[in-house]
Amino acid sequence: MADELVLLDFWLSPFAMRVRIALAEKGIEYESRGENVMNNSDLLLEMNPVIKQIPVLIHKSKPICESLIIVEYIDEVWKHKSAFLPCDPYQRAQARFWADFVEKKVYSLGRKMWDSTGEAQEAAKKELISCFKLLEVELGEKPYFGGESFGFVDLALIPSCCWSLWFEECGINMAGEFPKIFAWAERCMDRESVAKSVPDRHRVYAFLVELRKKLFAKH
Amino acid sequence: MADELVLLDFWLSPFAMRVRIALAEKGIEYESRGENVMNNSDLLLEMNPVIKQIPVLIHKSKPICESLIIVEYIDEVWKHKSAFLPCDPYQRAQARFWADFVEKKVYSLGRKMWDSTGEAQEAAKKELISCFKLLEVELGEKPYFGGESFGFVDLALIPSCCWSLWFEECGINMAGEFPKIFAWAERCMDRESVAKSVPDRHRVYAFLVELRKKLFAKH
Repeated sequence: MADELVLLDFWLSPFAMRVRIALAEKGIEYESRGENVMNNSDLLLEMNPVIKQIPVLIHKSKPICESLIIVEYIDEVWKHKSAFLPCDPYQRAQARFWADFVEKKVYSLGRKMWDSTGEAQEAAKKELISCFKLLEVELGEKPYFGGESFGFVDLALIPSCCWSLWFEECGINMAGEFPKIFAWAERCMDRESVAKSVPDRHRVYAFLVELRKKLFAKH
Repeated sequence: MADELVLLDFWLSPFAMRVRIALAEKGIEYESRGENVMNNSDLLLEMNPVIKQIPVLIHKSKPICESLIIVEYIDEVWKHKSAFLPCDPYQRAQARFWADFVEKKVYSLGRKMWDSTGEAQEAAKKELISCFKLLEVELGEKPYFGGESFGFVDLALIPSCCWSLWFEECGINMAGEFPKIFAWAERCMDRESVAKSVPDRHRVYAFLVELRKKLFAKH
């Protein structure tokens, strides 16, 4: 099985985490190949010549790129359990809408907050808080974004929890300001699929702080 | 039928064009409501409170937002003819990948080329040319991006042809440099669904030039 399914991976990438969680939810075995994101391997360049980024899922020698597209692919190929997207077209569109919102907003703003300072950082923080407010309302009293079961939007958002210590250092109090998202994140982290696919947040925090020092030392 | 299906629309928006073309391909009647994009209507704010942008498709009083998500929704609800996405999961992932590429690259670079000058404009032009080179290779000898029939990637890309006179003014010779895409665009424009959904390129060009004058007069 393993040689049929290979993930070009990187432990810190939230996009790779999505794929790891999706594969774990479906109970699929695969081989993870850690990539050096500062120096793309020949295999990565061959498999993703357009975007040149991980994650790439190689299934029967054919590459699938872009994390949310990979997650939909996994959902469509391995239908036997844990459907990530609902059956109803309207509910599917809603799930795609919120996953797209998370994709365009949460990660880019989190990154902006990390690689900027002063006013630019403050602006990113404010916008990220607005996004979390919208997500808090959208989640409401449901256990997961799609309702009773862990699904597409949960998969899209949960890797951002690795950054939670960084968010807190920037002054975003997740537990106090967004109690529903905070409880949701704990609920997701209790799942074996998530716990084993997402690195320890203290390790991520230490890495982010160290890399940020190097980034600003260069300027 | 018409009161069941309403499109919050704007004639110049390439994203709205995608939805108009998709509905025309499926032969679905709908009511188009032209929005003033400088002054959002109460209905638009009610139907798309998160992104606050057209296009929004309102089906049985429920809103669906974001053009590519709307196109997938249309494909899933009206399955009777002209499937936009193929059945095979790998082919579906490929179509989503290229539509996403078009979404992230072609339109944002086209816009950058329009609302910048000098070096920034030149950089956007160079990157846009790189994108068209990749798309020229991906299209190859096929009549449409997905193969024999008009589909998801065609729907994503074809509205950019409205900007072709503007691209030419910036020094991108579509017919000379990208003959396959040029022939593909002509092939798409021969379809009734596209011809009736896409405005005349001279009208678009005149509008873009006039608006650009106003934009730069402000600075």
